[in-house]
Amino acid sequence: MRDRFVLPPGVLYLDGNSLGALPAGVADALVAVGEEWGDHLIEGWGADGWWDRPCSLGARLAPLLGAAGDEVVVCDSTSVNIFKAVAAALALVPGRRVVVAERATFPGDLYVLEGLLELLGGYELRLVDGPFDPASPGAGIPLESAIDDATAVVLATHVDFRSAHLHDMRALTELAHRHGAVVVWDLAHSAGAVALELDDCAVDFAVGCTYKYLNGGPGAPAFLYAARRHLASARQPLAGWHGHLEPFAFSPAYKPATGIRRFLTGSPPIVAFAALDAALAVWDEVEREQVFAKGRALSALLIDLVDDRCPELEVATPRNPARRGSHVALRHGAARALVAALGRRKVIADFREPDLVRIALTPLYQGFTDVWDAVTALRAVLDDLGGAA
Amino acid sequence: MRDRFVLPPGVLYLDGNSLGALPAGVADALVAVGEEWGDHLIEGWGADGWWDRPCSLGARLAPLLGAAGDEVVVCDSTSVNIFKAVAAALALVPGRRVVVAERATFPGDLYVLEGLLELLGGYELRLVDGPFDPASPGAGIPLESAIDDATAVVLATHVDFRSAHLHDMRALTELAHRHGAVVVWDLAHSAGAVALELDDCAVDFAVGCTYKYLNGGPGAPAFLYAARRHLASARQPLAGWHGHLEPFAFSPAYKPATGIRRFLTGSPPIVAFAALDAALAVWDEVEREQVFAKGRALSALLIDLVDDRCPELEVATPRNPARRGSHVALRHGAARALVAALGRRKVIADFREPDLVRIALTPLYQGFTDVWDAVTALRAVLDDLGGAA
Repeated sequence: MRDRFVLPPGVLYLDGNSLGALPAGVADALVAVGEEWGDHLIEGWGADGWWDRPCSLGARLAPLLGAAGDEVVVCDSTSVNIFKAVAAALALVPGRRVVVAERATFPGDLYVLEGLLELLGGYELRLVDGPFDPASPGAGIPLESAIDDATAVVLATHVDFRSAHLHDMRALTELAHRHGAVVVWDLAHSAGAVALELDDCAVDFAVGCTYKYLNGGPGAPAFLYAARRHLASARQPLAGWHGHLEPFAFSPAYKPATGIRRFLTGSPPIVAFAALDAALAVWDEVEREQVFAKGRALSALLIDLVDDRCPELEVATPRNPARRGSHVALRHGAARALVAALGRRKVIADFREPDLVRIALTPLYQGFTDVWDAVTALRAVLDDLGGAA
Repeated sequence: MRDRFVLPPGVLYLDGNSLGALPAGVADALVAVGEEWGDHLIEGWGADGWWDRPCSLGARLAPLLGAAGDEVVVCDSTSVNIFKAVAAALALVPGRRVVVAERATFPGDLYVLEGLLELLGGYELRLVDGPFDPASPGAGIPLESAIDDATAVVLATHVDFRSAHLHDMRALTELAHRHGAVVVWDLAHSAGAVALELDDCAVDFAVGCTYKYLNGGPGAPAFLYAARRHLASARQPLAGWHGHLEPFAFSPAYKPATGIRRFLTGSPPIVAFAALDAALAVWDEVEREQVFAKGRALSALLIDLVDDRCPELEVATPRNPARRGSHVALRHGAARALVAALGRRKVIADFREPDLVRIALTPLYQGFTDVWDAVTALRAVLDDLGGAA
C-alpha cells in the first residue's frame, strides 16, 4: 500500500507511532471539503453529512476496533474523551471510590484522571508500578493484582507508549468485571496497529487517537467507544449541543441523545474529518489481519536483526509477539544522541526519556527492506558514537 | 473584501452568523498544511510551528478581542472551553455556590453548565428570564439584578443568538466584580461581529467560536481568553498533556504550564487550524472599526427597509445600534415557511424557534445592495405567502 502514501524521498520514516504518514487521498479530500463549504455553506451540515460525520466516521472506524457501527463516535481529543469515558464509567458504579491505572501509562492520561478526580472529590487514584515499565522491567506488580472489590474504574493502556507491552484485553476486562469494576481502555497505540475485538472482549469504554497508525493527520480527532449495553444509561459530564436528543428544539434543559451521540459535546472539526476520512479509506483496500500479521513480522525481524547486529541495544519490548504492539523500544544510555544521529541520516525514529529509541512498524507503508535499512542505520550511528567516544 | 471570499454564484448568503463564508485563501492553506505533513512528518510539530499553533493563532486573534497576545488560546470547541473557563472561574471563588445565567442564552452553554455543576455537586444554577428573550420581550428581569454577593460566576452571552441583544460588557463586568463574582463571557456571536475590549473591560474569562463572523470553517476550533491577572493561579479540570509545564518530561504528575497554555488539553487539530489561519489573514487587510461600523450601518438599513416595506415582520432585535450584534431577528408566525421560501430563491437565512427569521450582516463580504435584495426577497415571499393563504 506504499503508493497510497506520500513519503518524502530519501527519508526512512520510523515514527508512525507518533504521527502517521500522509495518505495520498488527503489532498483531494481537503480540496473537496473546501468546495463543500464554499458551495453549500450552512447547508453542508445536512447536504454533505457534516452533522452526522462524528457518527458516520465512527461507523467507518468500528470494524478496526471490533465494534458495531453504532458504538463509536469520532470527536474531540483523546484526553477530552478519557475525561468523558472515565466520568461515565464512574457514574455506573456510584458506591465505589478507587480508580486504578499504571504509573507508566501515557502521562497525559494521568493528568486527565487527576483533573477529573480533583473535580469530583473523594476518590483515590491508585497508581501501579507495573512490571512492564521499561525503566524497571520486571519490578512492580501487574495491573491485575491491584484490582479488587473496591475498584470503581480501571484505566488501562492497551499498548504501552514506551515498552509497547500489550495487555491481554480479554483477561483484564474479565477480571475487572468479576470484581464489579468498569474498564476504560486507551487504544492510542493499538488502533490500526493490532487486532482489536472490543465487543467480543466485553469492553465497557475505550478511547484512542487517529493520528498514529490510522494516519488521520496532526491532531486528528480522537474516538470514543461505548458498549451498546451502556448506551441507554451512560451519562457524561461534557454535555453539549451536539449530544442533545433534540438539538434544534433549543430547550434549556439537557436531554442526552439516544445512543452513542450523547458522547458528543460541541461542534466537530469538519475540515479535519475530511483528512481522516481519506486516511480510513486506505483500510477498505486491505485485509486487516494481513496488515497486523505483517506488522508482527516486521517487529520480529527488527528484534532479530538488532540482536544480531546491534548487541549494544537492549530490546525493551516484549519478545512474545502476542504481547507487543507495533513499535519496538531499544534501550541505550546514549539514546537521545542516537536518535539525533539517525535524523541526520534522514532516518526518523524518536527518543523517549530516559534512554529509549522507539522504532515504529507501519506495515501499510513499510517493507522488510526498510527494517534492514533501519538496523543498518542503527549500526552506523552506534559505530560513529563508538568512534567519537 | 468580497473578492477575498468564494461565494456561490446567484446565492444571497445571509447566514454568516451560523457559518461564515469560505475565505479565498483557505484552499491554498489546506494544500500547504498537507505538504507540511507530507514533507516534515513528525518534525512539523516544531519546524512548522504546530506545537505553538494554539498560542500563535490565539495571539493572531487577540486584537479582535481587545486582548493581549498571551491571553488567548485557540483549542477545542466552545462548549469544552466553557467547561474549562467556568470551572476555572468557580475555583477562584471557592466559598460561593451560585452560578447565574440567562435562560434564553444559547442552550448548549446551559447544557455545559448543567454537566459541570452536576459533577461538582452543591451548586445552584440561577437562570434568569431576561427582558431580551424575543419570546417575551420586556418581560423578565435583567441579568444584572440577579447578581448579588452570593454569586460565584456569571456566564453571560454577549450577543444573544436569537434577539442579537448585546450586553454592556463593561458595566456588567464591573457590577459582577463589585459583588465579588467572576464573569465568563460567551462571544460566539461577537468575535468578528462587534468591537471587543476584553482587557479594557477587565473581563475575567471569555470563550467563543471562530466559524461564524471569523469564517474559520465548519466546526473550526474555538478560543478561550483568560485575563493575565488570572493566568498564574487559574486551574482548569481538563488537565492534559499539551497544557503541561514540561510535556516532554513525561512526568506522571500534572504541573500546569505557565500562562495561557495551561488551558490546553489534548492534541490540537492542525489541519483545521490552517483554514482558520487563512481566515484570520483577511482581518490583516482591514480597519476593524470600519468593518464593525459598516455592520451597524447594514443592520440599520435592514431594519429601516423592513419597517418600510415589510410591516408584517416585527423587528425582534434592539433598535439601538449600541445594543445589538450583527444579525437582525424578524418575528413572523410563518417564519419557518418564509425561510424555506427564501431558500428556494437562493436567499439563505435561518429559522429559529419559535417564530424568528435571522438575517446576518457580514460586512466583509456583503454590500448595501445585498440588504436591499434581501428585503426585496422578503417582500416577495411574504406576498407569495399571502397569495397562498
